[in-house]
Amino acid sequence: MSNVELEALRAQLDEVNLKLLELINKRGEIVKEIGKVKERQGVNRFDPVREREMLNLILANNNGPFENSTIQHIFKEIFKAALELQEDDHRKALLV
Amino acid sequence: MSNVELEALRAQLDEVNLKLLELINKRGEIVKEIGKVKERQGVNRFDPVREREMLNLILANNNGPFENSTIQHIFKEIFKAALELQEDDHRKALLV
Repeated sequence: MSNVELEALRAQLDEVNLKLLELINKRGEIVKEIGKVKERQGVNRFDPVREREMLNLILANNNGPFENSTIQHIFKEIFKAALELQEDDHRKALLV
Repeated sequence: MSNVELEALRAQLDEVNLKLLELINKRGEIVKEIGKVKERQGVNRFDPVREREMLNLILANNNGPFENSTIQHIFKEIFKAALELQEDDHRKALLV
């Protein structure tokens, strides 16, 4: 019966992976929108204070099983990717 | 009006962050369950073929704005964290 159990767990994992993918991309779209607003305002896109606030809210809601340090590490990678996305848009805007 | 727009986008971002947190931790719980089943079966916990399959499914469903290379990078960090979680459980099991 263990292989059936394993297959069921793997199917759940694939489902969660695809939901994560959807949310990461949705997050990317929101960050791009924020970049456009900031571009119009002439404000710097990278805002370390806001990044710290986001992390604090995330960590305050972390009930595990992952440690805060692990969650912080993963989110920093997600933040970094989103910032690169804004920078790509900025470069394209300059080339127009 | 831009600041109202920015605040609305930031509220959306916080909401997505918390959903991501929930899913990452849910994923951690599933991976722990898989680790327990594999432990009983005496099977190695790290399975590079299965990891490749998961990534292929994720990338096949990627509609952007993130590039496949960025999505792959983020998911590899998530996979690595989950594997460490299984290893912690394994060490604890050995100490019992």
